Amino acid sequence: MAEVEAALYLIPVNISDAPLESVLPSGNTAIIRGIRHFIVENVRTARRFLLRCDRTFDIGASEFHELNGHTDLREVSSWLEPLRRGEPVGVMSEAGCPAVADPGALAVSIAQREGLKVVPLVGPSSILMALMASGFNGQGFAFHGYLPIGEDERRKRVRELESESRRRGMTQIFIETPYRNNRMVATLAETLRGDTLVCVASEITDPERESIVTLPVREWKKREYDYSKHPTIFLIYCGG
Amino acid sequence: MAEVEAALYLIPVNISDAPLESVLPSGNTAIIRGIRHFIVENVRTARRFLLRCDRTFDIGASEFHELNGHTDLREVSSWLEPLRRGEPVGVMSEAGCPAVADPGALAVSIAQREGLKVVPLVGPSSILMALMASGFNGQGFAFHGYLPIGEDERRKRVRELESESRRRGMTQIFIETPYRNNRMVATLAETLRGDTLVCVASEITDPERESIVTLPVREWKKREYDYSKHPTIFLIYCGG
Repeated sequence: MAEVEAALYLIPVNISDAPLESVLPSGNTAIIRGIRHFIVENVRTARRFLLRCDRTFDIGASEFHELNGHTDLREVSSWLEPLRRGEPVGVMSEAGCPAVADPGALAVSIAQREGLKVVPLVGPSSILMALMASGFNGQGFAFHGYLPIGEDERRKRVRELESESRRRGMTQIFIETPYRNNRMVATLAETLRGDTLVCVASEITDPERESIVTLPVREWKKREYDYSKHPTIFLIYCGG
Repeated sequence: MAEVEAALYLIPVNISDAPLESVLPSGNTAIIRGIRHFIVENVRTARRFLLRCDRTFDIGASEFHELNGHTDLREVSSWLEPLRRGEPVGVMSEAGCPAVADPGALAVSIAQREGLKVVPLVGPSSILMALMASGFNGQGFAFHGYLPIGEDERRKRVRELESESRRRGMTQIFIETPYRNNRMVATLAETLRGDTLVCVASEITDPERESIVTLPVREWKKREYDYSKHPTIFLIYCGG
């Protein structure tokens, strides 16, 4: 087994069917090979990912702890025991970069509180890649996670983001549960001003299905689309 | 020369002395090899990066346009001519992911306006990697670029970000010109509340010098540090 420096490694996971070599640095695999303790959002997808990185990965000799909505959060600190005694620990979310839009940040905050070393690895972030490809202001932006589900609150929130973008020139980014994506596009088209720009970035890094389209709201009103069940990022921008 | 689909490729550039294979997917190089038209923040660093990716890269047969503070922005559209006739074009910033904290977004917005395909590639983003490793809320965050230089305005702005983080639970991220980094840490330590958390993330991806430290303001006051001239990201978080 490879020697890897003791640290909490934040390991990005492929977010699409793209070949690993087009979305992850090969150096990540070298580090993964030296880790036997993992904090993961979902054990099954984590194991599958490790084997995709290295078909000979010793899953049986590895330890997995699930950090998600069902976790007793008082347990998390104990999962860093290997790191405290000098062994590397890995953190993986279901998809993309851990500790961004998933519960992994809790493990990181405990490590930081104790002065343990934290090392983020490079990988695909659909939030950042959507921002890059939108053509919107990347010198000021805000990510809001999920917006409210109720239609009235949602329209109100979407209008707030539009006026915030107009006032401060910042790109406003958010996500939606994939089966509600079409409803979100409709809400944006019906609610925002005609000249406000909306970027819809879907299936990022997928070699066949990636689609990143920026249009003014008045064009979205006329356009046909189907983003249902496709992982998608939404961006609003006024100004510039 | 490799055949690469016609698109505007957003090509991340190494932000440290790290070996390429630890920060960039090998697939990026395969795409770069098929591109002969580039829009870059700085021609010299762009050429050096291309040769680092592939020592045999045909620089002489390639065309470079500089998009930075000195550019006549009316020219930018004409640099997309190759793409309009079906040839790939690459965009590179000085360091990190293009079109985020650099002028490359203008080229992307023109491509989007004309319905030309835009493809972001995976690479190191110090903003996102700092957020991952901070342990702060990644489900809501804002990036503000540079803060004001004047001491009074700066303190005021820093306090605004602190209260925004407290009110909305969002991580607040910003950068500083590297030679002013120490002054920024001092400003944060003197201005913010003792229990507000500050993460200072420096030399991200550098195998020797990377340092990502989260501490409450009261600890930063006592701590010795020297971030002068080291590329650094600052993050503020209250709550959680």
